[in-house]
Amino acid sequence: MLFSAVQLRTVFPMLFDFDSAIAVRPLGDGVYDTAIRNGWDIMGNANGGYLLALVAEAMKAESGRRDPITITAHYLSPGLVGDATTTVKVVKQGRRFATVQAALQRDGKDVMRVIGTFGDVDTDALHPRVSLTQPEMPAYDNCPRRDSGDGAPAIMDKVPVRLHPDDVGFAIGKPSGRGIMRGWVQFADERPHDTVSLLLASDALPPPIFNIDGETGWVPTVELTVHVFARPSPGPLLCSFSSHIVQAGMLEEDGTMWDSRGVCVATSRQIALQPRV
Amino acid sequence: MLFSAVQLRTVFPMLFDFDSAIAVRPLGDGVYDTAIRNGWDIMGNANGGYLLALVAEAMKAESGRRDPITITAHYLSPGLVGDATTTVKVVKQGRRFATVQAALQRDGKDVMRVIGTFGDVDTDALHPRVSLTQPEMPAYDNCPRRDSGDGAPAIMDKVPVRLHPDDVGFAIGKPSGRGIMRGWVQFADERPHDTVSLLLASDALPPPIFNIDGETGWVPTVELTVHVFARPSPGPLLCSFSSHIVQAGMLEEDGTMWDSRGVCVATSRQIALQPRV
Repeated sequence: MLFSAVQLRTVFPMLFDFDSAIAVRPLGDGVYDTAIRNGWDIMGNANGGYLLALVAEAMKAESGRRDPITITAHYLSPGLVGDATTTVKVVKQGRRFATVQAALQRDGKDVMRVIGTFGDVDTDALHPRVSLTQPEMPAYDNCPRRDSGDGAPAIMDKVPVRLHPDDVGFAIGKPSGRGIMRGWVQFADERPHDTVSLLLASDALPPPIFNIDGETGWVPTVELTVHVFARPSPGPLLCSFSSHIVQAGMLEEDGTMWDSRGVCVATSRQIALQPRV
Repeated sequence: MLFSAVQLRTVFPMLFDFDSAIAVRPLGDGVYDTAIRNGWDIMGNANGGYLLALVAEAMKAESGRRDPITITAHYLSPGLVGDATTTVKVVKQGRRFATVQAALQRDGKDVMRVIGTFGDVDTDALHPRVSLTQPEMPAYDNCPRRDSGDGAPAIMDKVPVRLHPDDVGFAIGKPSGRGIMRGWVQFADERPHDTVSLLLASDALPPPIFNIDGETGWVPTVELTVHVFARPSPGPLLCSFSSHIVQAGMLEEDGTMWDSRGVCVATSRQIALQPRV
């Protein structure tokens, strides 16, 4: 009897790269081993969405809840690959929600401080009153794959995003002039998305400012907040990010994430610094 | 020689109601007396924006910085009027920013947990690249004043918001059917806005869900994040809030705040529970 890689990994989830990369181990007293794994970085610094997912796993474990509902991270120093611990404190364990704080530290130095409210998101994902509309997007197979060749970030091997053909101009010096970046986000090993991988997705695309006037480089996130509304159905996520305000060296970035049913499963917003070359 | 109330209060800022209401007193070791003052409540519970401004004053004092840049509060229990303290910890004091955590407690119980990055916002408030457009809004004097009569919240005496005539229908059982609430936010004593009063403004209007289908009642905020982009110029703030997603008993609310120059000085986003009557 033969099994596909996806079938096998459904039974043995740690076979998926992302699950190995966000695995956490309790050390007691709310402290977790949250080593920062290799391959989820951009120029040596772990991706902010990956770090948020890693810390959220420890927060989930400590709170005993299934899903992040709203989670905010402040980024204090780069997350280099290697040993790291997260100290988690459940501030309030309520009936419906748990409020949780966490600090990710590496070599005794703060990498992130995080606060989140955890609980159960709606399983049925019904959206009786949603006035957002799904972004226009060509089918997955019709979007160019962006991979880690040509100086693209290492994380692109793990999550080879497929950008909207109208939004790829920045990569060849022809930015669209609009602060928009749309793409399909799917793991290379086709791990199904869940409410934790939405945190990764919230920071997985190139920043939309790359398309405003062609500025590129490292865009350090100051703060990232993600709101989770539903568990995603299987398949690639449609993600759309926009920057509306760029001033005084800072920018904001707004995101929406849609599953294969067309449900808006999460939104995100971040404050970042303008690109540093 | 005669002085207007505004002139006097510019010299003696504590004469403004809001400054008295958010005054904090250091008790040592990062603990501040942050008594929750009377008159800033909705059915006995202090307004979430007022509480955020109060805690931000303590965070500002402890960090030595002038402005909140990005600040997030999780609300754990109602903030009743009376004695309260805030414990503040500066997590990182950097060159450009300070990252600060705070806990507001009353009778030994957590009311709020807050994390913020503080610094100096752009004084010139230039927006070289802003793609947001200011909401359509009739002049201040042409908008109906909403005050504290007829069961409206007590805070309306301190901040008598003037709503867009198209958005007041909920109050007479004729909701517009759209999840939008626009209004002018100005203090009754004409205190000029600053970056801390923007935090109050971010939660000062009736929730836009009131206009979706006429549901009203208490809408408890779970989490509120405000991003500050510029110091506001004098005069009323134009504020616009929208709810795009309402599901499974929860809703999100997005806000933009504009000063008299037409500058987008802040944005906000919150997750709240659906109205409880």
